[in-house]
Amino acid sequence: MTGLLETPYGTRDFLPAEAATKRAIEQKIFKLFASFGYDEVVTPTMEYLETLTTSRAQEPHLFKMFDRNNRTLALRHEMTTPIARLAVSRLKDSPTPLKLSYNTNVFRFRTNQPGRQCEFYQAGVELIGVSNAFADAEVISLAAQALNVAGLEDFTICLGQVDFAGGLMENLPSDMQDEIKSAIERHDIVALNNLNVDDALKKIPTLQGGREVLTAAQSIANNERSRRALDNLTEIYRLLEVYGVAEKITFDLGLIRDFEYYTGMVFEAYSPGVGYSLAGGGRYDNMLKDFGAARAATGFALGIERILDAMKFQNVSEGSRAKDFYLSYAAGHESEAIQRAALLRAADKVVEVSLTPQSKVDAEKSCAEKNCLELIYLQ
Amino acid sequence: MTGLLETPYGTRDFLPAEAATKRAIEQKIFKLFASFGYDEVVTPTMEYLETLTTSRAQEPHLFKMFDRNNRTLALRHEMTTPIARLAVSRLKDSPTPLKLSYNTNVFRFRTNQPGRQCEFYQAGVELIGVSNAFADAEVISLAAQALNVAGLEDFTICLGQVDFAGGLMENLPSDMQDEIKSAIERHDIVALNNLNVDDALKKIPTLQGGREVLTAAQSIANNERSRRALDNLTEIYRLLEVYGVAEKITFDLGLIRDFEYYTGMVFEAYSPGVGYSLAGGGRYDNMLKDFGAARAATGFALGIERILDAMKFQNVSEGSRAKDFYLSYAAGHESEAIQRAALLRAADKVVEVSLTPQSKVDAEKSCAEKNCLELIYLQ
Repeated sequence: MTGLLETPYGTRDFLPAEAATKRAIEQKIFKLFASFGYDEVVTPTMEYLETLTTSRAQEPHLFKMFDRNNRTLALRHEMTTPIARLAVSRLKDSPTPLKLSYNTNVFRFRTNQPGRQCEFYQAGVELIGVSNAFADAEVISLAAQALNVAGLEDFTICLGQVDFAGGLMENLPSDMQDEIKSAIERHDIVALNNLNVDDALKKIPTLQGGREVLTAAQSIANNERSRRALDNLTEIYRLLEVYGVAEKITFDLGLIRDFEYYTGMVFEAYSPGVGYSLAGGGRYDNMLKDFGAARAATGFALGIERILDAMKFQNVSEGSRAKDFYLSYAAGHESEAIQRAALLRAADKVVEVSLTPQSKVDAEKSCAEKNCLELIYLQ
Repeated sequence: MTGLLETPYGTRDFLPAEAATKRAIEQKIFKLFASFGYDEVVTPTMEYLETLTTSRAQEPHLFKMFDRNNRTLALRHEMTTPIARLAVSRLKDSPTPLKLSYNTNVFRFRTNQPGRQCEFYQAGVELIGVSNAFADAEVISLAAQALNVAGLEDFTICLGQVDFAGGLMENLPSDMQDEIKSAIERHDIVALNNLNVDDALKKIPTLQGGREVLTAAQSIANNERSRRALDNLTEIYRLLEVYGVAEKITFDLGLIRDFEYYTGMVFEAYSPGVGYSLAGGGRYDNMLKDFGAARAATGFALGIERILDAMKFQNVSEGSRAKDFYLSYAAGHESEAIQRAALLRAADKVVEVSLTPQSKVDAEKSCAEKNCLELIYLQ
C-alpha cells in the first residue's frame, strides 16, 4: 500500500501552508511583472519534441511520451522556447517590443542529482524585439525587484557579458575555443591555467567584484568585441543605479551560463544558505532565428521553490493567513449559521462553518485546531 | 518549419487577453473557496500509475511515461485521487473535516473527441470526513457561487442521488443491475424500456424537474434505500434554499455520473450554449478506502475553459485591463523615465516604459498600439 502513497522521484506536494506561501509569492511577482507592462501567457505543458529541441534542450533531460499518432511529445523543460514559438507564430504581428511573462511548472528528467527537482516552478519574463542596454537593465531590475517583493533582502546578482571572453578568443582555433569555453563554464581554473593560451584569458575567472572590475577588464580587452561588451555592462550598470538596484550587482566576467545560447549580458542571483542560483537569465539574440524569425531577446527565470528556500533561510515569513472566524452552533441553528457566514464573507471575511452541531466546548477546540482567530457560537 | 510552431493535439496556448481572463476567474474562484475555509494544495503533475489507477482512472485515458527506474508514471487526469492520497498520508492527522481546494491542469489522452482537450484546467474542492447533507449542500452551493463569481447568471445545477436507483434495483441479479446502470448512465431510454424490469426503474429517466419530482419519486420508492436517498435530497434542498441557490436546482434522478464511484448525491452544472457540463461532483464515501483509510468525502470540479466558453456565450466580459500609462521620452531622458515609472508603480499603476527614445508622434502611436490609457512624454 505504501507505494501508492508516494510521489514520483523529484516531485513534491505543497501542503496547505506551503501552497499558501507559494501562491502569495507568485501573486506578488505576477503583479510586479504586470506593473511593468508584461502580459502573462500560458502554453501547453507538453510540446512536440522537435519544438523543444530546436534550441538548446538536451533530449536526455526531457520527459517524453507519445500522442495519438505516435508522435513524440515532451514536457516543457523551460518556458523560453514555448514563448519563442508564440513570438514567431501567433504573436508575430503584435506591437514591438513583446513583453511576456509566465508563472508555471517545468520538467527535467534527472537521475542522480540530489536536491534537484524533476518538476519545479518558474516565474519569468521575455522581452523580445529590443537589443539595447535599457532592455537588459529592465529585466535585471525586474529580477531584483521580484526577489525584493518576495521579502528577500540579502541577495547578490552576478552580472557578466559573454562577448568579453568571446572577443578574447575569437582568433583562436575552434577546438581551442571549445576547451576554453568548457573550462570557463565549469569554473575550472586549473584546466584553464594548463591551456597554452594568452594570460588575458586565464585572468577571466578572477574578474569578479564591483565596478573596479570593469576598469581591470578594460586593460586586457585587446579587441573591439570585448571592449563593446564592457561598454554594454557600463551602460547597464548606469541604468541599474537609476533603478536603485546597482548595490546588488557583482560583476563576474567568468559567468557565461551557456556559450551557445547567450549573446550578451548574462546574470544569476544568489542568496545565502541556498546552494543554487535563485534566478538566471541573459540576452539571447539568436534563439528566435531557430524558429525562422531572428529577433533580439532578453529575459530571465526565477526558481519559485528556491525563493521559498531562501525565505526560510532568511526567516522571511509569508505565513498562511489565519482564518477570521470559526462559526459553530447548537443543533437546530444550521440555517442561521449559513446566513451569518454569508454576511461575514460578503464583508471579505474567511469563515469556516461547522458542518455538524457542536457543544460550545467542542466548538472552542475546533476553532483553535482550525487556526481560526475568533469563534462565533450560535445557540 | 511549420510543425515546430504547432502545439500537440488537444492542447492550446492562452494568449495575453485569454490568459488574463483565465487568471482573473481563477483568482476569484480561489478567493471564494478560501472564504469558506478551503485550503489550497498543490500536487505533482505526474503520479505513479498505480496511484492513479487505484480508484476509477482508466489506463487508456492516461498519458504515460517512465521514471529513472523504468517505473510507469502518468500525468494526473483529475485531482481527487492525488488529494485522496494526501488525505490518507501526510494530512491524515489534520483536524477533521479536511477542506481542500485546487486549481490546476489535468490531462486525458483522447483520440477522437472533437472539442475535448487533452490538457485542461480545473478548480475544485474536496471535503473529507463528514457524511451529512450539510456537507453536500456546502459543496453544491460553492459550485453555484463559483459560477456566479465568474459572472455567469444563467446556469442550472442538475441534482441526483445514486441510491435512489440503487435501491430500486438492489434485489435484481448483478448482470441485470449492470445493464440497467449502463442504460441509465448512457441516458439510453430505449434500452431501458426494452429490459424486462419493473416499471419503477423505467420511470427513473423521467424524474427530472423541480421539487415535485421528489414527491413523484416517493410514490415509486418501494424500499428503504431509495427513500433515504429522497430524504437526503430533501434535506440538501432545504439547506440550498438557505444558501439562496435553490432556484438553480433541477432534480434529475437519472443523473448517475459513475455508479462505481459515487455513493450519494451527484450533480452537474449546465449553461446555455456550452455542450458540456461546467462543473460536476458528488459524494464518494468509498474512494479513500482504496487508499487504505475509509473516510466520507464529497466534492466537485469546475472546468475553467468551459466557464470561459460560457462567459463568451453569455457576453460576460472579464477583459484584460488596459495599462494605465505608456511612458516615453526624447533622447537623454532615460533616467527620468525610470524614476517617474517607479513612482507611478509605487502608486499601484501599470506603466510600460519605452525602451528607446521616440518622437512624440511615435510615442502616441505606441501608446495606442499597446492599449495604454494615457501617454506621458518626457522631453
